[in-house]
Amino acid sequence: MYKVDLNADLGESYGNYTIGDDSAIIPLISSANVACGFHAGDPLVMMDTLLKIKESGSTGLGAHPSYPDRQGFGRRYMDMSKDEVRAFLLYQLAAIDGLAKTVGLTLNHVKPHGALYNQTFKDIELAETIAQTVKEFNPNLKLVGLANNHLVKAGEAIGLNIVHEVFADRAYESDGTLVDRRKEGAMITDTKHAVERVIRMVKEGKVTSIDGKDISIQADSICVHGDGEKALIFVREIIKGLKEDNIMINTF
Amino acid sequence: MYKVDLNADLGESYGNYTIGDDSAIIPLISSANVACGFHAGDPLVMMDTLLKIKESGSTGLGAHPSYPDRQGFGRRYMDMSKDEVRAFLLYQLAAIDGLAKTVGLTLNHVKPHGALYNQTFKDIELAETIAQTVKEFNPNLKLVGLANNHLVKAGEAIGLNIVHEVFADRAYESDGTLVDRRKEGAMITDTKHAVERVIRMVKEGKVTSIDGKDISIQADSICVHGDGEKALIFVREIIKGLKEDNIMINTF
Amino acid sequence: MYKVDLNADLGESYGNYTIGDDSAIIPLISSANVACGFHAGDPLVMMDTLLKIKESGSTGLGAHPSYPDRQGFGRRYMDMSKDEVRAFLLYQLAAIDGLAKTVGLTLNHVKPHGALYNQTFKDIELAETIAQTVKEFNPNLKLVGLANNHLVKAGEAIGLNIVHEVFADRAYESDGTLVDRRKEGAMITDTKHAVERVIRMVKEGKVTSIDGKDISIQADSICVHGDGEKALIFVREIIKGLKEDNIMINTF
Amino acid sequence: MYKVDLNADLGESYGNYTIGDDSAIIPLISSANVACGFHAGDPLVMMDTLLKIKESGSTGLGAHPSYPDRQGFGRRYMDMSKDEVRAFLLYQLAAIDGLAKTVGLTLNHVKPHGALYNQTFKDIELAETIAQTVKEFNPNLKLVGLANNHLVKAGEAIGLNIVHEVFADRAYESDGTLVDRRKEGAMITDTKHAVERVIRMVKEGKVTSIDGKDISIQADSICVHGDGEKALIFVREIIKGLKEDNIMINTF
Repeated sequence: MYKVDLNADLGESYGNYTIGDDSAIIPLISSANVACGFHAGDPLVMMDTLLKIKESGSTGLGAHPSYPDRQGFGRRYMDMSKDEVRAFLLYQLAAIDGLAKTVGLTLNHVKPHGALYNQTFKDIELAETIAQTVKEFNPNLKLVGLANNHLVKAGEAIGLNIVHEVFADRAYESDGTLVDRRKEGAMITDTKHAVERVIRMVKEGKVTSIDGKDISIQADSICVHGDGEKALIFVREIIKGLKEDNIMINTF
Repeated sequence: MYKVDLNADLGESYGNYTIGDDSAIIPLISSANVACGFHAGDPLVMMDTLLKIKESGSTGLGAHPSYPDRQGFGRRYMDMSKDEVRAFLLYQLAAIDGLAKTVGLTLNHVKPHGALYNQTFKDIELAETIAQTVKEFNPNLKLVGLANNHLVKAGEAIGLNIVHEVFADRAYESDGTLVDRRKEGAMITDTKHAVERVIRMVKEGKVTSIDGKDISIQADSICVHGDGEKALIFVREIIKGLKEDNIMINTF
Repeated sequence: MYKVDLNADLGESYGNYTIGDDSAIIPLISSANVACGFHAGDPLVMMDTLLKIKESGSTGLGAHPSYPDRQGFGRRYMDMSKDEVRAFLLYQLAAIDGLAKTVGLTLNHVKPHGALYNQTFKDIELAETIAQTVKEFNPNLKLVGLANNHLVKAGEAIGLNIVHEVFADRAYESDGTLVDRRKEGAMITDTKHAVERVIRMVKEGKVTSIDGKDISIQADSICVHGDGEKALIFVREIIKGLKEDNIMINTF
Repeated sequence: MYKVDLNADLGESYGNYTIGDDSAIIPLISSANVACGFHAGDPLVMMDTLLKIKESGSTGLGAHPSYPDRQGFGRRYMDMSKDEVRAFLLYQLAAIDGLAKTVGLTLNHVKPHGALYNQTFKDIELAETIAQTVKEFNPNLKLVGLANNHLVKAGEAIGLNIVHEVFADRAYESDGTLVDRRKEGAMITDTKHAVERVIRMVKEGKVTSIDGKDISIQADSICVHGDGEKALIFVREIIKGLKEDNIMINTF
């Protein structure tokens, strides 16, 4: 039987500010990427989010570390040295790992957030630093990166358990990279088409690139979003499609 | 043989800012209170501080958590709810505990910083929240509080290992509390006198209050400071006096 | 003809975080209290908010300065010295005043936010520090404070133009202070009743206290809220009631 | 008579953290670049720094705005949009301009700090955004940029008063740019040689590049540093050399 994971970003609220509807998305996904207080989240929000995940009983817990930039929501690239990236990652991993133990959860994976994720598309050294730091903190942690990209390769090279992540709503170049959002056709807006693409990625390990070629892609986990009713409908459509094709949704 | 611990605050630098001479004070003390990034310290500074403590080989590692107020250096009381204090403490304890493991150190104690420490002199509920949270995070951690005060009592009441802290340079009221700094005679400025007081606290468990009465005091650890040459000289005088009286300096 | 001002807090969004529906509330009110980046708002949000206020054409612009505590949304009391309060206030006033000039607006009033407002109910010295600092920055600025309370008295004593603020949804003690929210009857939940109270405050300068006495109250401005559809409906009811009673809504 | 300005960064302390000896450097320089609270400084530090500059009587006041990155001291490039750079600049300019007026000073110039300055060496669009924003805030402000570089050209193109800044301790490439610090010979370490170079830049408008060519350079202001005794000695040597050559030190 085919299996795939669904992951989403959670715990992004902060103080008096709310983002997302974590209680609605948690039952739909199999892995949660929880903000660690640097781009989003704070100690209270993190504790609350961890309790919700624990209650769900089946959602895998992941750390979602970021550049230290709350105002920019971790979406702005920051030119940090290797030592800085390592120390800032370790701090965030330590914080969420310790809080998780307090509520009886075990950290399962790490997925870098925002610019720290996107920058690895072109920065091999950053990808290697992230992979090494995750291994240094805990070699049993799984590392989530874009399928076909530097981060997954850097993690595989040092023996980490790697999760190849695919996007249901994004087009791919024939070299396996994501089509730039600013390019026409970059977003897959038709839900039915998106579901068909995801199913083919899971079952055949293939996707059609924007210029019509079949390319290989490993789909261990599908990235979904929980902010807004439209996003939740899209997630439910994907789940429906996967179930109809007998693909089990399961934490990697 | 009599024994006592010497503790000092460390790891208070931040980014491009330096406070204290950690390399000079670490060899003199037996316990280090390391800032956790909320009033001082940052991930890089913390990693660097932990490595220095590890190199020293004999200094006990403590967490020095604070209210979240870097500009005020954690010295301003903040009216936080019990839930907030708990979550902010757990986050800081988790962060330093995880970083410590990364470098091969074990967290030994917790000492609240600044206003979070001083506020427990009058706020029993805060003292209880801190003690309960330390126990929740790890019941084997030792809790450092002002001798005779709410924090040590709250910790003892729930079975924590408690470290009664005394101040070499501060006068005491006859009820065992510290004399307010603004009051005349609050500071013990004569080094020789300070050393004699400390030795009597350790050996006899007694100190003379500001109004001339002998009061009971348990001196498990002496708080010293490492910022500035004058402070280091004072520490060396205390160490010399303790050694001359055959009092061993040892991590609690 | 009777006149009264309606004021609301605006510009509380931050980075990727949204609070309130500023575009919906601006046309309803006559004075806007804009966050200055310490408890809420950031330079981008402030510029955007100022442009919206400018477009409205008739809403008076106010600064809404706060303790420096974004995670706590400025709602937690912080024990800051007089010098700190002064400098932090001046910085926030300068920032919003300068941005306002950039878009062609003039700062009209100052209303302290959250704990910085509430603390003046009991702390006369803080009230005086705020009033003096506003006067120091610009003696033509109007200062908004709770009717009958320390802040308005401190401002009047040094010759500032004072705006006495009343709350439509809160009960009053017979000494003119607000009934503690935790006390039964503290909130006026019936909209019709709230409107009647407000109209009487404006026209007669009187309100019935929680224990049934008539007390004097000066209602220069009514504080309303714009976060959520329910809040907006309440504002529209108040506006309707005021208009039916021929009370003009006008910036103080 | 030849004239040149000496400028230095000031007001970089923060809360309990001290950087630099502002009282020692202020009497030596003719222009001060004051941190605006984003990479360094805070409202208290800024007020204190402005008072010291006012007492000096002759030092020109400049804003030293930065990317919002206190932990990185504004030295890390951040990928901010044009709108973000504009709003963050305006906020910082407004804050220091307003505080300056409070103490009776007038803002004279703007010099971007750290990565916001260095990035303009290669990013023309950023240079243009900075120049346009300074003009938008106050067209009478002078803009300090690296001689021969994008920022001064962008400012000149829109009619701003431009200050061409040179470095006494840095070698130049034959295209007028600074030699990368990592390259051998990048730093001029011999004080006598540095002074001679500066004098030639001021009097002849020429400097010898690292590969031995004479290049044109306009030296309106020399950047000096006040952190540490060695830096102060270097400044005093430059001042001595300038005076011996009858070059007047004067605010641009």
